[in-house]
Amino acid sequence: MALIDRFTTPYGAVRKIDAFGYLDALKADADAPRKHGKVVLVTADTPLKASRGEGKTTTTIALIDALRARGVDAAAVLRQPSMGITAAGSKGGASGGGKASLTHPELVDWGLCGEMTAIAAAQNLLVSFAEKAVDEGSLDTIMVPRVSEVPSRSLRQITVDRGKGDVPERVVLTPTCELMQIVVLSRSMEEIGRRVAAMIAGTREGEPVRFGDFIDVWRITNILTDAVKPALTETRNGSAVYVHGGPFANVSVGIPTLVSVEMACALHDVVVVEAGYGADAGAQKWLDIACREYGAPWPSAAVVVTRATTWRDDPSLSWRYPFHVRRLEGLDIPTFPLINLWDGEDGEVDSLKSTADALGLRKPIVGNLYRDGGKALAPQLDAFVQTLSQESSPAQPDSHRGMALLENVRWVADHAYGVPPERVIIRDGFAESLASAEQLCRADGLDLDDLALVAVKSPATMTDDDSEPEDRRSVTLKKVEVHAGAGLVQVNLTTSLTTPMPKIV
Amino acid sequence: MALIDRFTTPYGAVRKIDAFGYLDALKADADAPRKHGKVVLVTADTPLKASRGEGKTTTTIALIDALRARGVDAAAVLRQPSMGITAAGSKGGASGGGKASLTHPELVDWGLCGEMTAIAAAQNLLVSFAEKAVDEGSLDTIMVPRVSEVPSRSLRQITVDRGKGDVPERVVLTPTCELMQIVVLSRSMEEIGRRVAAMIAGTREGEPVRFGDFIDVWRITNILTDAVKPALTETRNGSAVYVHGGPFANVSVGIPTLVSVEMACALHDVVVVEAGYGADAGAQKWLDIACREYGAPWPSAAVVVTRATTWRDDPSLSWRYPFHVRRLEGLDIPTFPLINLWDGEDGEVDSLKSTADALGLRKPIVGNLYRDGGKALAPQLDAFVQTLSQESSPAQPDSHRGMALLENVRWVADHAYGVPPERVIIRDGFAESLASAEQLCRADGLDLDDLALVAVKSPATMTDDDSEPEDRRSVTLKKVEVHAGAGLVQVNLTTSLTTPMPKIV
Repeated sequence: MALIDRFTTPYGAVRKIDAFGYLDALKADADAPRKHGKVVLVTADTPLKASRGEGKTTTTIALIDALRARGVDAAAVLRQPSMGITAAGSKGGASGGGKASLTHPELVDWGLCGEMTAIAAAQNLLVSFAEKAVDEGSLDTIMVPRVSEVPSRSLRQITVDRGKGDVPERVVLTPTCELMQIVVLSRSMEEIGRRVAAMIAGTREGEPVRFGDFIDVWRITNILTDAVKPALTETRNGSAVYVHGGPFANVSVGIPTLVSVEMACALHDVVVVEAGYGADAGAQKWLDIACREYGAPWPSAAVVVTRATTWRDDPSLSWRYPFHVRRLEGLDIPTFPLINLWDGEDGEVDSLKSTADALGLRKPIVGNLYRDGGKALAPQLDAFVQTLSQESSPAQPDSHRGMALLENVRWVADHAYGVPPERVIIRDGFAESLASAEQLCRADGLDLDDLALVAVKSPATMTDDDSEPEDRRSVTLKKVEVHAGAGLVQVNLTTSLTTPMPKIV
Repeated sequence: MALIDRFTTPYGAVRKIDAFGYLDALKADADAPRKHGKVVLVTADTPLKASRGEGKTTTTIALIDALRARGVDAAAVLRQPSMGITAAGSKGGASGGGKASLTHPELVDWGLCGEMTAIAAAQNLLVSFAEKAVDEGSLDTIMVPRVSEVPSRSLRQITVDRGKGDVPERVVLTPTCELMQIVVLSRSMEEIGRRVAAMIAGTREGEPVRFGDFIDVWRITNILTDAVKPALTETRNGSAVYVHGGPFANVSVGIPTLVSVEMACALHDVVVVEAGYGADAGAQKWLDIACREYGAPWPSAAVVVTRATTWRDDPSLSWRYPFHVRRLEGLDIPTFPLINLWDGEDGEVDSLKSTADALGLRKPIVGNLYRDGGKALAPQLDAFVQTLSQESSPAQPDSHRGMALLENVRWVADHAYGVPPERVIIRDGFAESLASAEQLCRADGLDLDDLALVAVKSPATMTDDDSEPEDRRSVTLKKVEVHAGAGLVQVNLTTSLTTPMPKIV
């Protein structure tokens, strides 16, 4: 019986793994067999609109099937799709498609084993505890939003306690909340409890009050008992796919749980991690938050997915795709362009390849992955497999801890969006928002500049207007929000959504 | 391999059973082996307050352990406790205690396998669909409430779409919603879909509009895929306990899913069904709704649990316990008093027994079930087991379908609360509420009098004032609410809560 089997439980059509327990067992026994899997980041071009996927999950599934067909022990780690998005009907599921599919996509798309609903219940229970604290006078202003598992346009702005307190509130989709960030970033239930206790519930006479000051943390962690366990499902070809954690990369950290990736790396030689939406969201956050600040493995290679139409249909936006590929190459990550063809596009392969060649990119991998799955990829992976087999010494990324927040934001704008510091615009109100975040942190005994930066932005744009010429593109800063429990500071850029709450279609 | 094993899947620490599939398979093969288990109803005295349990679950667990110790193949069916109540901290879990415990009480109390959260998501998605219909002009007034899995005092009254539509709404706890009632009463996913389609979403120019007119029912049923499967857990002594469905008996139908009871009856000789709060809520609803209107098995015996203190501490309320026992005996259900002792009450056994004797009740079963579990009961079950072994011909309960609603309410007040028709008081506004419910039904092509009656009341009182002398007790009728999808009409009595939303303690 392998060590992992002791931590694996059948759970309906999937399995759930006690990743905390397994990783602890590995730590406790240096002789326990383990692998040291390399991480491959699958990210994408910036989509033309949020509801239009490039096919990252389809690519991820086809890629591990293809690698396994070539004898490489590969597995994937996916974020759990938001059931709210599936339920809204504005976007298909996020579980691949066609020959690049999971065995139980309907489960993954429609709530899996209740992980997200459990996190929703726990986050909303925190708000209930905060209300109790208000009743008891230990809090006067609640700063933690409620969450909803399904989108509802009218919840964007609500008033609670109607007729009495009449308190204005907003409701956000579950994957965006601080508790989800905590689940994603924590390596033990004890750490989750500690981080929940460190969350700022709100203020009393202007001073921050932490949840740890007044709640029973165990009531929160009890609700999360099964939610913290990654689900193991598989592709139709039997490749392992771990699904866990689901914040959106545009408005939150957008990465799967760190423990699910670490567990997969101990079990497989190659671990493909999906990071989206585009490289400006998902990859930026994997590299700058997960790796730099939270010790996640630096990628040994990257694949950047685009569709032929995304890359070429709007000439004013076609700079984005090569920008993403070059940015990752510039970080010493061997980066492979991958073009996910749709029906009727088979004839475009040569022209796509010569375009890539003219731009100095690596030779692109091209295929109709929905139609052909991993079979379309396997013969094209020589260079990719060669890269992974090299004894690469991955870059040692530097933490930005202690870097002034503004400098940090300018660094991200420069590196991830191609906008130099002088065109990072500070909008009216930003300075006040920054000052009050700094003051909140100081009163809480924290240094704002020690928190990891989360850029909050639209998924479909990198700058204030991506269709401007390069020397006129800008990024505007709007407001700052502290998530002390998760150890994050969120900065909203002009193109950010105020409330991620899609419409039902 | 037994037939049931084909429909059973391990699901973490418990198992989930496709009850729909199993019952279909039994129907399709008349030769498939099955039992014809007798139902024993475990109900209780009316509690002194809602947060104080008499020990129904503890009794249920001890009872099946004791029956099995005596060689009887017994199992239990429990409702899923509301995580909202557990999270609020106002009441312990609802999964037994001490030696009369389940192997995984924490799972049962804290959300089980996500059944309740899935129902919450689906009910809230219905509201989102209704909002879309409002946007599109096919609906102008939404009648379906949102639900929350955790209690929050400020959600009792809210305004949504703040600053635009400013629509007043209320939020109720998940277990009380119509979709939960539909899950409880339906015998197939097709029936659930049909009933969801028949739910009245709201009105357009005063005319009822059904969800079936504008939603994708499959999006709702997809969310419910696993939620419709009963969970199988067990007592510490290895007795089978099925847990499924969780509406409150004071404000809703308050019974476990019908299919979980039918499945248990096909698998065991004796099936103990818990029905609470008191007999005036849980037993009334099992008999008058589940059995009379939805074809559930009539009980072959009943156990009515009380605590010594509940029965005796308030002399003005001590009429309730013998009332409940006699009411069930009067329906030809052999009814056994059971007194669940707490620490320090061992010396009271004789006096309790002589009180019961003086009242002409059967000899009570008495024990400290928390401390001693089934061992306290087994030696006292001779008469009980003897009753169950008789070839009883259970009463054929009559449906009240077609009985005028007011006559039906008066019948319940008379039989279940001991209040004669002339003291059923009609409060201002009730007649209007009744007339508009009748009109709504008529416009929907239904007859209000064909719907099953759900009395909505406080869990801790049966009448307007239970401490009044018998000839002055009354019941006041407040309002009428139609749940066309579930086939129910709810009538609020004066002592009903407007919104079941407990405070966090």
